[in-house]
Amino acid sequence: MAVMPLVLKTALERVAADVDAAFDHILAVPDDARARLYEAMRHAAIGGGKRMRPLLVIAACDLFHVDRARALRVALAIECIHVYSLVHDDLPCMDDDDLRRGRPTVHKAFDDATAVLTGDALHALAFEILADPETHADPFVRANLVAELARSSGPSGMAGGQMMDLVAEDETFDLPTVTRLQQLKTGALIGFCLEAGAIMAHVQPEGRARLRGYARDIGLAFQIADDLLDVEGDVAATGKAVGKDAAAGKATFVSLLGVDRARRQASMLVDQAIGHLSVFGAEADLLRAIARYVVERDR
Amino acid sequence: MAVMPLVLKTALERVAADVDAAFDHILAVPDDARARLYEAMRHAAIGGGKRMRPLLVIAACDLFHVDRARALRVALAIECIHVYSLVHDDLPCMDDDDLRRGRPTVHKAFDDATAVLTGDALHALAFEILADPETHADPFVRANLVAELARSSGPSGMAGGQMMDLVAEDETFDLPTVTRLQQLKTGALIGFCLEAGAIMAHVQPEGRARLRGYARDIGLAFQIADDLLDVEGDVAATGKAVGKDAAAGKATFVSLLGVDRARRQASMLVDQAIGHLSVFGAEADLLRAIARYVVERDR
Repeated sequence: MAVMPLVLKTALERVAADVDAAFDHILAVPDDARARLYEAMRHAAIGGGKRMRPLLVIAACDLFHVDRARALRVALAIECIHVYSLVHDDLPCMDDDDLRRGRPTVHKAFDDATAVLTGDALHALAFEILADPETHADPFVRANLVAELARSSGPSGMAGGQMMDLVAEDETFDLPTVTRLQQLKTGALIGFCLEAGAIMAHVQPEGRARLRGYARDIGLAFQIADDLLDVEGDVAATGKAVGKDAAAGKATFVSLLGVDRARRQASMLVDQAIGHLSVFGAEADLLRAIARYVVERDR
Repeated sequence: MAVMPLVLKTALERVAADVDAAFDHILAVPDDARARLYEAMRHAAIGGGKRMRPLLVIAACDLFHVDRARALRVALAIECIHVYSLVHDDLPCMDDDDLRRGRPTVHKAFDDATAVLTGDALHALAFEILADPETHADPFVRANLVAELARSSGPSGMAGGQMMDLVAEDETFDLPTVTRLQQLKTGALIGFCLEAGAIMAHVQPEGRARLRGYARDIGLAFQIADDLLDVEGDVAATGKAVGKDAAAGKATFVSLLGVDRARRQASMLVDQAIGHLSVFGAEADLLRAIARYVVERDR
């Protein structure tokens, strides 16, 4: 098991605590019949997960010295989207998972209908957070964040990738198609995490190419590592079911490349991701550590 | 059956055609494995429904002489939210409806997983549309629209109301609780339709009280009329199953007030809604016609 570098461990623990505290505040349970919805949102959102996407937002914002309280709001929004997608993905009619982050999934702890609404409510909450003046004083920044998040999570981003993933159960995808699937399903949202830092700091679109390159590379590396964990990981460490893709007959990077080539490919992508950061100094050390950890983690 | 006034009939037909054309354009089916998602989104969004919410947006924008092409984009966004909520609501784990707008529901025409993703994709699309500069040149307006739509569709709005509706199957709600449920479940989004016109025209929040009052009154009247149709309507006219609330043992305005009082209450609310418009001239005639039609419709 890889040892996590201290800079990364500290940053992850801090962002996890901050995200939990912010969710605890924003998801205060109302004293009416909506209570069950908020309890389910809390169950899904608080006290679990790697918080990798919030960390990426914070790390990208750090590059441009964005105020941390504001960066955290963007981190919270992206985690709302990530968590909503997990809650819906775990539904019996989707991946049918009973376990997530080492705990019962929302539809197991509550019921299917509550899980559908919980995902929908977290989805809306993400945009409510981004559009609030507390996230940024400049409405252009807020509108831009919303546009980018909606695009990367909607039919031309994450939701489109999830559809491809459903189709993958019936068709045999080749490597370019699996790569495209993953770029939409997980890559688009990771791309948003990095772009968000630039948007918050008014960095122009043409100045964001390096961040997009980094995001694309670690996004794919992250997915290859996930495929490797699905083959080689264990339930106790990952906190979720393993071996599911193979059981569903889906093509993955591992089934297409084999374990050794997949591992080499992930490692190459990490080097390439770090290469994109060469113009930055020590302020990008956290992003470098994240890139390395993406392929070394065991969950 | 009530005869629809010509001004309303013409406006509804025009907005329905415009919404269909816009969805047809924005939901062009891509030539890849996401095709199924776009086909399901088209099935859900095109060629059906009363388009009452888009019409309310257009009518509210007309009060303030907002450019129609821009008003239509807001109308499209609100219809995305409305349609996503219907697609999820119809799922077997929710209301389990096979028929919607006279056609098979998305999970019947496709499958449950596709229906979950279709709702999610339409949800994201709503915010993508609002945040786009084509909707309004002023980013403050765009961010404001997003904030209001997210709030009125999220846990403190529509999704919260839907949760109360789930709880209503197990508990017996009194009239104030049913009123609150409906204000969240359908009223919040209707409120957004009216507010959106004011936001698009830079009308300050304090100037929007009349529109909010109108929205609150027709929202409740609309719901009482729906409850009456659920008891008295027929499948052929409404295009959806009837008698479901009674079968589920839910308290409704009709079960709490009886048919006669419910009908009088709806009629009183319509008068009150029209009263809020007294400061406006002929430019509010469409809103007046809508208010009257809300309780006279047979579907």
